[in-house]
Amino acid sequence: MTDVFVHEVGTRDGLQSVPTFVPTELKMRWCSEEFRAGVREIEVCSFVPAKLIPQFADAAEVVRHALTIKGLTVAVLVPNMKGAELALQHGVHKINYVISASESHNVANMRMATARSLAELKSILTANRAESIAVNFTVATAFGCPFEGDQSPDRVFSIVESALSWGVDGVTLADTTGMAHPLQVARMVERFHVGFVGIPLTLHFHNTRGLGIANVFAAYQSGAVLFDAALGGLGGCPFAPGATGNVCTEDVVHMFELMAIETGIDLPALLDLSSKLSALVGHDLPGQVVKAGRRCDLHLLPLEARERLPTADGGGSLQN
Amino acid sequence: MTDVFVHEVGTRDGLQSVPTFVPTELKMRWCSEEFRAGVREIEVCSFVPAKLIPQFADAAEVVRHALTIKGLTVAVLVPNMKGAELALQHGVHKINYVISASESHNVANMRMATARSLAELKSILTANRAESIAVNFTVATAFGCPFEGDQSPDRVFSIVESALSWGVDGVTLADTTGMAHPLQVARMVERFHVGFVGIPLTLHFHNTRGLGIANVFAAYQSGAVLFDAALGGLGGCPFAPGATGNVCTEDVVHMFELMAIETGIDLPALLDLSSKLSALVGHDLPGQVVKAGRRCDLHLLPLEARERLPTADGGGSLQN
Repeated sequence: MTDVFVHEVGTRDGLQSVPTFVPTELKMRWCSEEFRAGVREIEVCSFVPAKLIPQFADAAEVVRHALTIKGLTVAVLVPNMKGAELALQHGVHKINYVISASESHNVANMRMATARSLAELKSILTANRAESIAVNFTVATAFGCPFEGDQSPDRVFSIVESALSWGVDGVTLADTTGMAHPLQVARMVERFHVGFVGIPLTLHFHNTRGLGIANVFAAYQSGAVLFDAALGGLGGCPFAPGATGNVCTEDVVHMFELMAIETGIDLPALLDLSSKLSALVGHDLPGQVVKAGRRCDLHLLPLEARERLPTADGGGSLQN
Repeated sequence: MTDVFVHEVGTRDGLQSVPTFVPTELKMRWCSEEFRAGVREIEVCSFVPAKLIPQFADAAEVVRHALTIKGLTVAVLVPNMKGAELALQHGVHKINYVISASESHNVANMRMATARSLAELKSILTANRAESIAVNFTVATAFGCPFEGDQSPDRVFSIVESALSWGVDGVTLADTTGMAHPLQVARMVERFHVGFVGIPLTLHFHNTRGLGIANVFAAYQSGAVLFDAALGGLGGCPFAPGATGNVCTEDVVHMFELMAIETGIDLPALLDLSSKLSALVGHDLPGQVVKAGRRCDLHLLPLEARERLPTADGGGSLQN
């Protein structure tokens, strides 16, 4: 049985900060291979104007391919009504609609006021949509905004409440620029579970300030079981050159595996896939397990040490 | 009041993997400036033969300087009797004696059997030592060995028990090659506190597989308040090229500060010091906060977004 579900978002959140266009063929292969490794939901792209994010100019083609992978939930991020319409036309399984808790971040990122974003979400949900299409609602900057700082949890939860009242199927609390800390995460997750019983909650963390995996752990301890992550930790932060992106899929899976928490994912297969990603995007990636090996990948004791090992009769080298 | 104590070990654990000799003058300045930032204990070097670790050829000089910093606890790592004697001669405040829980790691690292290491520790403790000199005992590979894999907690705790019976003043559980995971850490810290009431326990984590800060958080949750860390995350792993070293001092301090847990350390001063370290050692360092800025270091909203912000009268841009 799977205890936690790690969903891939590197194809979207990771790639959107990669300046060179990654060939469509490779994006498609990424989806296929990661599904083969056991990942069951992938946010394959954004439906945004190609002039804003040229990396997703091939969104339709990638989605078409992903939909051929039986058993994969194909999610796409949409920032507005237009994107949602495109996503629905292409028959994705899930649209992930994003609004920032922070007014200024929403304006910078979605190019409209939060009120307008909410109104568009409401329209999408009240329009005739196929029952087979899930709408997930992401609150971006839920743990802090790079322009405004702290975000009031009351505001975050009031936005969530509106979205749920209009019929979203699940909610993601996103730490868009890596501002969350473990105790804050625990408080937010607990409040969510108390306030919205039975609503699927996904946690989306960035490792911008080194706290990504600690936040995953804190969220898990508070009962969260759905996590976004990016293969290799691909991605960056627009405000911090050199800072890392999303938490790294294989490092998160590795942590859960060490703690005997079942992810349903084949870690060696995931590591194999991740090891090719660095060459694909042309730079080193922050993922650690792919460099250091899994905890259980042991090393040979050097020969000269082997000769010093105590023998069964209790002897051993006295060399100092 | 200080809630947790973060001790610097980058001067020892970090520098020992830096192949180029860092000038003595810079090591001394590192100690002085980090003390000025509020760090109250620094493991300034190892007393080991210079032919084994040339980086510490100037150990005596660095110790002499560190001892002039009033209020700083000057610790040094020693791997054996010889090192301990040198440390005592030089009048350090604390010697940190290391034995690996893993027989093979001890042989590879200390070049002798664990039994011999323990016998030397006992001699050090039973010899006439000045009351002002503290002896801390580190169990290396306490959470796993790169040659043997899992280490039996019973073996770890039995070694600790022996050391305590001979009079060590404190114990460090060290995750020498980054194999610990948060639930394991919680179990080990809880068992320690139950078994050895009132004995100072330090946790020493490496971020080799991305779990370093999650482990710090888990240990803190279980009651630990003493942590080792290395400025900038300096250091590496002999078995994993590209893998990171100790948890990063300023990233750990930043996490605690966000959680309103007092470290007594001036984070901006620490970040200022860390920002120079990369140039000093000639390569990029894994510390994140020095690249991304503190959580509260906000960014200016781009001008075009400012023009779209909703106005006080409830208006706002309708541009999409």
